[in-house]
Amino acid sequence: MKLPLPIQRVADELAELPSIGPRQAIRLAFYIVGQNKEAVRNLAASIDDLRNIKICERCFFIHQNADNLCDICRNPNRNQRAIMVVEKETDLVSLENTGKYTGRYFIIGEITKTGILEDWQKLRVQALKSFIEKNLVDAARPGEPGRADEVIFAFNPTSLGDLQTSLLVKELGQLAKKNSRLGRGLPTGGEIEFADDETLSSALDRRS
Amino acid sequence: MKLPLPIQRVADELAELPSIGPRQAIRLAFYIVGQNKEAVRNLAASIDDLRNIKICERCFFIHQNADNLCDICRNPNRNQRAIMVVEKETDLVSLENTGKYTGRYFIIGEITKTGILEDWQKLRVQALKSFIEKNLVDAARPGEPGRADEVIFAFNPTSLGDLQTSLLVKELGQLAKKNSRLGRGLPTGGEIEFADDETLSSALDRRS
Repeated sequence: MKLPLPIQRVADELAELPSIGPRQAIRLAFYIVGQNKEAVRNLAASIDDLRNIKICERCFFIHQNADNLCDICRNPNRNQRAIMVVEKETDLVSLENTGKYTGRYFIIGEITKTGILEDWQKLRVQALKSFIEKNLVDAARPGEPGRADEVIFAFNPTSLGDLQTSLLVKELGQLAKKNSRLGRGLPTGGEIEFADDETLSSALDRRS
Repeated sequence: MKLPLPIQRVADELAELPSIGPRQAIRLAFYIVGQNKEAVRNLAASIDDLRNIKICERCFFIHQNADNLCDICRNPNRNQRAIMVVEKETDLVSLENTGKYTGRYFIIGEITKTGILEDWQKLRVQALKSFIEKNLVDAARPGEPGRADEVIFAFNPTSLGDLQTSLLVKELGQLAKKNSRLGRGLPTGGEIEFADDETLSSALDRRS
């Protein structure tokens, strides 16, 4: 028995999304059919609405502004010379929610396990390089290509994140006076007894 | 930092779907934004299309026919006196794919872990009872309420499935000359060494 075409089409498209498998996609499609028509219309309309969202040409976060910059990149109170490199939009949101950071961001996009950048990611890196070299010229070194004050590599504290950081430091490390990473140590609310060796070592090294 | 409204709306609606949590919903919304506008439109349009799918008034499977019956219920070659009760549409599709069954189905919908039927499920059971009593009158017992030849309870072979079966047998058991369940035994391709006791007992009991 073949699935009815409209179900199959939705299932195929949902299965393209990350972390949704083909069987789950079919179950979701059937579930949506079972909802009332109003709910189905709302889901479709709100997804369709996402077409109106734009991507910031500087940091690649999303926005809905008339020009091509997001709220952070167009904010004159944000330090454009400090650039935090993050993997995903949701990482940016979490970091921004601390209220601690006044620089700008740069979203590189999810990096595959090989650590090799895809073509669209290379284009983003290229855009960042050009921006820094053209727009962040050092008053003390006129005529030289610009440099950022700081590039912060904010990847997950995992071995994959460390690999990503070291690969990107090669690409971007020369473009800033200072490179940094997020601090390692005990997470607030954690327990010493259950912390792994690496975390405890970091906590000892960085005791304050 | 608040999520942009269109993202938040999609995330809220995706999080309503089964097996999608709020964090995954936000990631999915950002992922969809990152796709090209054509892909976003297609996803929205194909979901919107699901509004045109109808639910069979007899078995509650989906269909797109002009009347209110699905392809199976309207097929004169299918035996309307044998009724297989399944939990989900996807179970129906799997069973139908065997090509072994010539009766019709009845979808009760996913049953919560308590085993208690929800109101819409009670309405479905009521509809099935009326159908059987009115339309399956026994020529040998004119004037008496109708009975099906067989009701097959095709729930998952788990303790929850067994609970569901025993609850529904109470509701529907009187409505058929014969009640049955799917056979238990070793799954094809499985290994005796790794089969659990229950499965092996069933395989011994039902040896052929």
